[in-house]
Amino acid sequence: MALKLDDISPQVRSTEYAVRGPIVARAAELERAGREIIYCNIGNPQSLGQRPLTWVRQVLALAEYPELLERVPAGTFPEDVVATARHIGARSQHGLGAYTESKGFRFIREAVAAFIEERDGLVSDPEAVYLTDGASKAVQAVLRLLIAGPKDGILIPIPQYPLYSATIALYEGTAVPYELDEAADWAFSRATLEAAHAAAVARGIRPRAIVVINPGNPTGAVLDEKNVEAVLEFAHAHDLAVLADEVYQENVYRAGARFVSFAKVLARLGWSEVSLFSFHSTSKGYLGECGHRGGYVECRNVPADVQAELTKLQSVALCANTAGQVVLYLLVRPPRPGDPSYQLWAKEKLAVLEPLARKAGVVERGLNAVPGIHCQPVAGAMYAFPRITLPPGVTDGDYCMALLEETGICVVDGTGFGQRPGTWHLRTTILPPLDRIEEVVRRMGEFHARFTRRAAEGR
Amino acid sequence: MALKLDDISPQVRSTEYAVRGPIVARAAELERAGREIIYCNIGNPQSLGQRPLTWVRQVLALAEYPELLERVPAGTFPEDVVATARHIGARSQHGLGAYTESKGFRFIREAVAAFIEERDGLVSDPEAVYLTDGASKAVQAVLRLLIAGPKDGILIPIPQYPLYSATIALYEGTAVPYELDEAADWAFSRATLEAAHAAAVARGIRPRAIVVINPGNPTGAVLDEKNVEAVLEFAHAHDLAVLADEVYQENVYRAGARFVSFAKVLARLGWSEVSLFSFHSTSKGYLGECGHRGGYVECRNVPADVQAELTKLQSVALCANTAGQVVLYLLVRPPRPGDPSYQLWAKEKLAVLEPLARKAGVVERGLNAVPGIHCQPVAGAMYAFPRITLPPGVTDGDYCMALLEETGICVVDGTGFGQRPGTWHLRTTILPPLDRIEEVVRRMGEFHARFTRRAAEGR
Repeated sequence: MALKLDDISPQVRSTEYAVRGPIVARAAELERAGREIIYCNIGNPQSLGQRPLTWVRQVLALAEYPELLERVPAGTFPEDVVATARHIGARSQHGLGAYTESKGFRFIREAVAAFIEERDGLVSDPEAVYLTDGASKAVQAVLRLLIAGPKDGILIPIPQYPLYSATIALYEGTAVPYELDEAADWAFSRATLEAAHAAAVARGIRPRAIVVINPGNPTGAVLDEKNVEAVLEFAHAHDLAVLADEVYQENVYRAGARFVSFAKVLARLGWSEVSLFSFHSTSKGYLGECGHRGGYVECRNVPADVQAELTKLQSVALCANTAGQVVLYLLVRPPRPGDPSYQLWAKEKLAVLEPLARKAGVVERGLNAVPGIHCQPVAGAMYAFPRITLPPGVTDGDYCMALLEETGICVVDGTGFGQRPGTWHLRTTILPPLDRIEEVVRRMGEFHARFTRRAAEGR
Repeated sequence: MALKLDDISPQVRSTEYAVRGPIVARAAELERAGREIIYCNIGNPQSLGQRPLTWVRQVLALAEYPELLERVPAGTFPEDVVATARHIGARSQHGLGAYTESKGFRFIREAVAAFIEERDGLVSDPEAVYLTDGASKAVQAVLRLLIAGPKDGILIPIPQYPLYSATIALYEGTAVPYELDEAADWAFSRATLEAAHAAAVARGIRPRAIVVINPGNPTGAVLDEKNVEAVLEFAHAHDLAVLADEVYQENVYRAGARFVSFAKVLARLGWSEVSLFSFHSTSKGYLGECGHRGGYVECRNVPADVQAELTKLQSVALCANTAGQVVLYLLVRPPRPGDPSYQLWAKEKLAVLEPLARKAGVVERGLNAVPGIHCQPVAGAMYAFPRITLPPGVTDGDYCMALLEETGICVVDGTGFGQRPGTWHLRTTILPPLDRIEEVVRRMGEFHARFTRRAAEGR
């Protein structure tokens, strides 16, 4: 007999990942039928018109095909592009076609460590850096390390990015939710963390780690140094490892806000007792190179024998893809002022980040102008997570599906991220081009009025 | 307190992957200290001097950086390279920087289906094809689907490629070993399969699937059509899914042997009751593009609702890397006779496969000339798995470590793959250049004589 759904492991069946869930499946169906869809469900910048950086693609082309240099006129590529591609060729030893070390190319791990040192004024150990197929795979590897069974709890924010809930379900651990305070710009309090922890312990759960997403996905909140310190104090008090998802570290828009890494605050506190895993990615920031699947995790205060287990885990599928490793290298080792590629790089970077900041404002103000929609400031990341007031009897899932059917705008319901019971939300990216995003906000406002009127009239 | 080894999940700690185990770690140590190491532990062709195909790298370079065409003189790239890169640009919609569908680019899945149709004369459904970061990840996804708990058994060959034992351990399933018959060129018999199955059932295990690696890793054996049919009959009789690891399908050297896919034989049998997962990769064959992590799984007789679970599982980490997807496209859609790139492609392909066939013979004959070493024919794949006669009191692990220390040759002990108790083996690739591989075989022969003499003398 062929496989049946009943045969499939319940771990997989209980996994949910709303960012590519039923609403998105329906959007693809409509698109195949000829409808124009605006995909705001996922932070996928280049699918919404963002251009790749010339610096990244020039080096990639040469790294893939070094013989090209012999076939093109001198000056076709800027000198620093040529030098960087040659450096990659020399340091990788065998180019991009061979398996790398399980942790990734050593020279790229050194560049990641140097990037962290320069960003935070810290010492970073290249041997504690693991290059992965996007940050998602790094998160999954660390959670695999930490979860032994259903009694192992991982504290995750509510709302959260569903990679966490999905992966915890897959490894049969227990998600321990802690609520972010929407009224306070999605900040969290030590009291909330303590309550979540105590409730889990009372249920017989052993909390192992806490996940923090900063800048926040889906919330768009940016933590200040005091917030970060509070998390570390809490982790310290309860013997928790910390997973710091910092993939949006370049995406900070709110005046006065700035990204502060967990590594930096941990180093200032001087605690060697808190194990920290920090994640970064090539998919967000100003590169938006999602398809290349580049990312890393840096381990701090993780003993060598535990790191050896992580290395072994990575070795089973051999290594992260080399093109993604190279894109990561180009993220952490960009052109410097005075380099031939610097001006174009800086211009293209600004051309991504500056409109993003404006779009954050457009979405925030536009949605807040709609009666029944309340949107906290989009201080960072790539999303707004507005609260929507709905008549009784309908869910945010119903709402988002109707939004899709009526307007072609594809967003994800708050239920997919978790939210305080009795509240409804949706997540939309701020990525479409400025004129598109204005249109999205306008259509959402009109839709909201229509939908709530209809629902109230019982139609 | 920082994480301790005792805190780490036992699933991870019990996982073993010898291909990158302690012998390889020691080799890296020696290399850092200045020793020259010949890495025969892993099928990593481009690390041993194999050149990437021009066809692959030219298209990749243009796909990464399409603007290049405007910057180089006409004729820099062959017309079919330009056309293929443009086709990739058009069909991918957003180039290589955006997330693709969770299953991978649709146009590449269509090309994979066409490749299977052309190879086997079958109908293949692009929606049943999943593109993955190398075949390893595809195998892991399918095993994740099939294993719900420790009572779920997966039949694996002994010897096997340790991806299987490692992944089954990671997902807490039970490996059910069935022995290949070394004396019969590593063929297997229905009786052996039945015995393994019955023994597992007697222990309360529920066998779910059988893994077959063809051509064999580490054995180098190539199954004939009757063998393939026997496996399918066995699977049919016991309601097992079949995992057909066919990543070495282009690597067949023995005169008269040829690769026969499980898909083809299953279609001929006409059974819709056997679920089949067939794996292929860009890492082996004549491409050897290991670093790009390209691969696929094709599902047959897997109902839509089960496939939906696989899609969901893939969606959590979004998609396989796009460069790897493109390399896979170039594998399944190579230049055709008459195309401008055809002649160079054919020449470079032959320059990989022809020496591989000769090296298979060199290794087989050279090792068989050493008293105490017996090597079955290397009919396919990239490895020899010779049996070594050792004096009592030493293991193949001791042997391989001493081989490394004394000769700089890094191979993997048979224990890492599994073997009949009381026998010892090692796995070596046949990949080094011809003069190197002759040297490897010579040094191994001298070492074997030295080692066994010393061991017999009790030193």
